[in-house]
Amino acid sequence: MSVAGRVIVYGGRGALGSTVVNVFKKNQFWVCNIDMQENTEADHNIIVTGDTWTQQEENVCAEVGNIMNDEKLDALLCFAGGWAGGSPGSKDFIKNAETMWRSSVWPSSISAKLACEYLKEGGLVVLPGAQPAVKGTPTMAGYGMAKAAVHQLVASLAGPKSGLPANCTSLAILPNTLDTPMNRKWMPKADTSTWTPLVYVADLMVKWTSGEERPDSGSLVSLVTQDGITSTQPSKVGQ
Amino acid sequence: MSVAGRVIVYGGRGALGSTVVNVFKKNQFWVCNIDMQENTEADHNIIVTGDTWTQQEENVCAEVGNIMNDEKLDALLCFAGGWAGGSPGSKDFIKNAETMWRSSVWPSSISAKLACEYLKEGGLVVLPGAQPAVKGTPTMAGYGMAKAAVHQLVASLAGPKSGLPANCTSLAILPNTLDTPMNRKWMPKADTSTWTPLVYVADLMVKWTSGEERPDSGSLVSLVTQDGITSTQPSKVGQ
Repeated sequence: MSVAGRVIVYGGRGALGSTVVNVFKKNQFWVCNIDMQENTEADHNIIVTGDTWTQQEENVCAEVGNIMNDEKLDALLCFAGGWAGGSPGSKDFIKNAETMWRSSVWPSSISAKLACEYLKEGGLVVLPGAQPAVKGTPTMAGYGMAKAAVHQLVASLAGPKSGLPANCTSLAILPNTLDTPMNRKWMPKADTSTWTPLVYVADLMVKWTSGEERPDSGSLVSLVTQDGITSTQPSKVGQ
Repeated sequence: MSVAGRVIVYGGRGALGSTVVNVFKKNQFWVCNIDMQENTEADHNIIVTGDTWTQQEENVCAEVGNIMNDEKLDALLCFAGGWAGGSPGSKDFIKNAETMWRSSVWPSSISAKLACEYLKEGGLVVLPGAQPAVKGTPTMAGYGMAKAAVHQLVASLAGPKSGLPANCTSLAILPNTLDTPMNRKWMPKADTSTWTPLVYVADLMVKWTSGEERPDSGSLVSLVTQDGITSTQPSKVGQ
């Protein structure tokens, strides 16, 4: 059966990742989910195993190799992440910083590697940034370090000799607050008119994957929602 | 015996760290070295042990607690780091990224924690940045991620509620190439008139520790050497 294209969604069982998988399936894409848990909507699932960065890399890359045959990907989209607070002076700073590193930087860097190996020419890799980490984040220091590393990796992927195939685009999305069930639960009194709808992000991923409205490679794309309307504002690391 | 002040040098056995220890001792400071190996010039040595981030934190913080009594520090200066190349598409990308994380971000984050606990009001914390990581570093992607995280941590430390005592200053130094014996060995034909002398950096640390010529807290201070003359150029994360 012919498909519109092929994408891997790393973190395709989370709130945002599940929505992205759903919207790509509706648009006739073949979708592989890489996550700790299966997403039954995906065409293929790879469950992340391994307790170290290199073990996870080895296991995930081997499984992707097994299913790709000679196919190439239109996009590698990573939404894996987490959140923990804590200032550098807080008791759990290092413990939380390590958790953030594992939940954000491990998946993003393995995604970067997969993108270099499996994207087609002109393909797309998107990694999960965060608007606050563009500056200092004193009360969530570990989170900020991890996201700053992801932002810089997006810039590295966009540079010469990064290992990406020709004419690929490397981007980060930088949400402020996503409109997820968990955020609704934990912030019941918040003004949700500034929260970014998950379907907006998923539709944006389909557009970019299809080559429409792609910002310059290396861009950190802020998602700004006002009165329920979302717009994208690209910037770059160090600029 | 009266001392000019008290400083901890994290990584005080490396080329730059040793020079800093030496120059602070000449200026009558009490100096504690934290490193994998002893520096016999230091007043006190703490040898880093532990295979994980939190184990190193626990061991180092306990030992610092044992020696500080009720004393406070004028400065916490971290020069621990390392270098490895590799693009996101290279075979050893993840392995090298992990090595860079351990060698740069572990010591810097433990230094940040110690600074919050032991600096006096108006004290100084300096972390080891790198000029190239202000933008993308496609051929040394793991190195760039680690240094970008350190830069962002410096910005976090400078913000409100970071945990630093009042009126402290948080800075990164961003060398281009330092004039070390190893760099002389590996780049024998390079133009060393643009390499930054280690003594310049050590003298700068003494000045900043003494409250002279300190840039704004949160600054990334580029060290630019031309014709053997070095100047400092401060900038900030996200600006």
